[in-house]
Amino acid sequence: MTIPTDPETGEFHRAPNRFADRITEDGRDGWPVEPDRYRLVVSRACPWASRALVVRRLLGLEPVLSLAVADPIQDERSWRFTLDPGDVDPVLGIHYLNEAYAKADPDYTGGISVPAVVDVPSGKLVTNDYPRITLDLSTEWTAHHREGAPELYPEPLRDEIDEVNRGVHADVNAAVYEAGFASKQAAYDDAYHRLFTRLDELSRRLESQRYLVGDTITEADIRLFTTLVRFDAVYHGHFKCNRNKLAELPVLWAYARDLFQTPGFGDTVDFDHIKRHYYQVHEQINPMRIVPRGPDLSTWATPHGREALGGRPFGDGTPPGPPPAEEVLPPQW
Amino acid sequence: MTIPTDPETGEFHRAPNRFADRITEDGRDGWPVEPDRYRLVVSRACPWASRALVVRRLLGLEPVLSLAVADPIQDERSWRFTLDPGDVDPVLGIHYLNEAYAKADPDYTGGISVPAVVDVPSGKLVTNDYPRITLDLSTEWTAHHREGAPELYPEPLRDEIDEVNRGVHADVNAAVYEAGFASKQAAYDDAYHRLFTRLDELSRRLESQRYLVGDTITEADIRLFTTLVRFDAVYHGHFKCNRNKLAELPVLWAYARDLFQTPGFGDTVDFDHIKRHYYQVHEQINPMRIVPRGPDLSTWATPHGREALGGRPFGDGTPPGPPPAEEVLPPQW
Repeated sequence: MTIPTDPETGEFHRAPNRFADRITEDGRDGWPVEPDRYRLVVSRACPWASRALVVRRLLGLEPVLSLAVADPIQDERSWRFTLDPGDVDPVLGIHYLNEAYAKADPDYTGGISVPAVVDVPSGKLVTNDYPRITLDLSTEWTAHHREGAPELYPEPLRDEIDEVNRGVHADVNAAVYEAGFASKQAAYDDAYHRLFTRLDELSRRLESQRYLVGDTITEADIRLFTTLVRFDAVYHGHFKCNRNKLAELPVLWAYARDLFQTPGFGDTVDFDHIKRHYYQVHEQINPMRIVPRGPDLSTWATPHGREALGGRPFGDGTPPGPPPAEEVLPPQW
Repeated sequence: MTIPTDPETGEFHRAPNRFADRITEDGRDGWPVEPDRYRLVVSRACPWASRALVVRRLLGLEPVLSLAVADPIQDERSWRFTLDPGDVDPVLGIHYLNEAYAKADPDYTGGISVPAVVDVPSGKLVTNDYPRITLDLSTEWTAHHREGAPELYPEPLRDEIDEVNRGVHADVNAAVYEAGFASKQAAYDDAYHRLFTRLDELSRRLESQRYLVGDTITEADIRLFTTLVRFDAVYHGHFKCNRNKLAELPVLWAYARDLFQTPGFGDTVDFDHIKRHYYQVHEQINPMRIVPRGPDLSTWATPHGREALGGRPFGDGTPPGPPPAEEVLPPQW
């Protein structure tokens, strides 16, 4: 895979999402919320897609929104269904996610990204607009939420959640990629600096409160979690985000383990997919494609002590049950 | 720089040293010990060369054996004197170390390595046989040792030192390179496994004794130190030796800091040279040549508590004084 960076500055910037239709209760974009109509396509390697995996689990949307998991290793045609029998997604009947993109827009020549939501009857991609996908699962799919589903984007907290998300997006979610893919030292240095400045700020914020906003889990925690859970496995070494390991930042490390051990978070995480994807796909920064054996991942299961801070993880709701049998992951260490 | 690996197995093996003449008291190879006759050529980036830097300091040989420090970044002609005015070593009058190799053997086409000892009058390379160089400084140059110089290779402990050195060489000094340069997963996995198995064994050995052999600093400690001091700065990320950081292995981390803080060890270490060398020279594994900003190196100065184990660092001797003014390094953090 070739990673495009600005030839002048050496900076990497994620391409914007081209397909931004929304699936809504009122169906105003032509895509009404309907059970069994859409398919969520993810890679378990991808932090942007993993947000949707967590939200779908927490809200109990598994029975109404089915899941396609792509091979963590893309080829030159990008995400593919080589984990499925015959290398074909059993519901969409396609080998490559780009087939759904082509059905939506035959002239499209841009990048192929996950998460993607595909309309099963037409086979068309509806949206790859990852920041919107999770918010719409929370706010438009309410009729299909499980009993006891938490409010992940509660009305009174939206401004604060949005503000936290802006900082986390720029300086954490995106910054790790900007550090890792930088082709010039100054571009890397800038991303590294923003990343650790923000992580220090988040550490202070989380020292005395269990979650980022309010006293329950929200969308803000999910967006931070999907980067933190990859930190020591890939970003610290592969992306050179190495001022510290996450395991050396006591507050954030305990916070991340707390979430990891919460149903709906850790049970979506496939470290094998994560490590193989990053180290084998980015030949531009890891030409030998060797996958490191470390670090020891069993430390994710160690006690975190964050219950002492109080907080009500699911607010007035309840934790989700276990994942559907076909989505249960093998032991991670 | 191209790193050669076995095309079948993907294994990297360091080339043997071609020039193995010895500088001895009796001059039996034609090279008698003499003050002001030889020049030690090192890179401060290189762990093999750094052994000689430490031994020279501990034994107080600076006044009789002068020092040339190569640029940490080799070019296609290898080690060069671009840190000196006019890009020329002021004593040898050469731009590249390979000129001394050519004077010793005009037909030589092999690798150019440091440490190298050059005969100043003839300009010829005498030896690049790094394991022998340090032992000969200890045992053949005794007439020129400073007052209070320690015995780094004491007769009664040689068998034990040699045995420890064999394990440390195969599974630590060389294994980090074998992990980092491996071009196939199995070759990497094997080196990684040997490395951490050996580090665990060394941790147990050093839990209740301050130094590796006997109760004083010996050649064995020096050989382990020069790899450990590079561990978190380069081997952990760049060479994928990432089961743990050294800072996560309490016994070895305290042991390494104890040595670092001992005169003659830390004052030879140039982390800037180390980081730039590894990350910028090995384009085969780091094509963007970005140098990570982490980790925080100031932790090398933190208390280690190893004095509680007793031990007599210099035996009946004394610590060396400060380095000569022209060898004093800038602040390292």
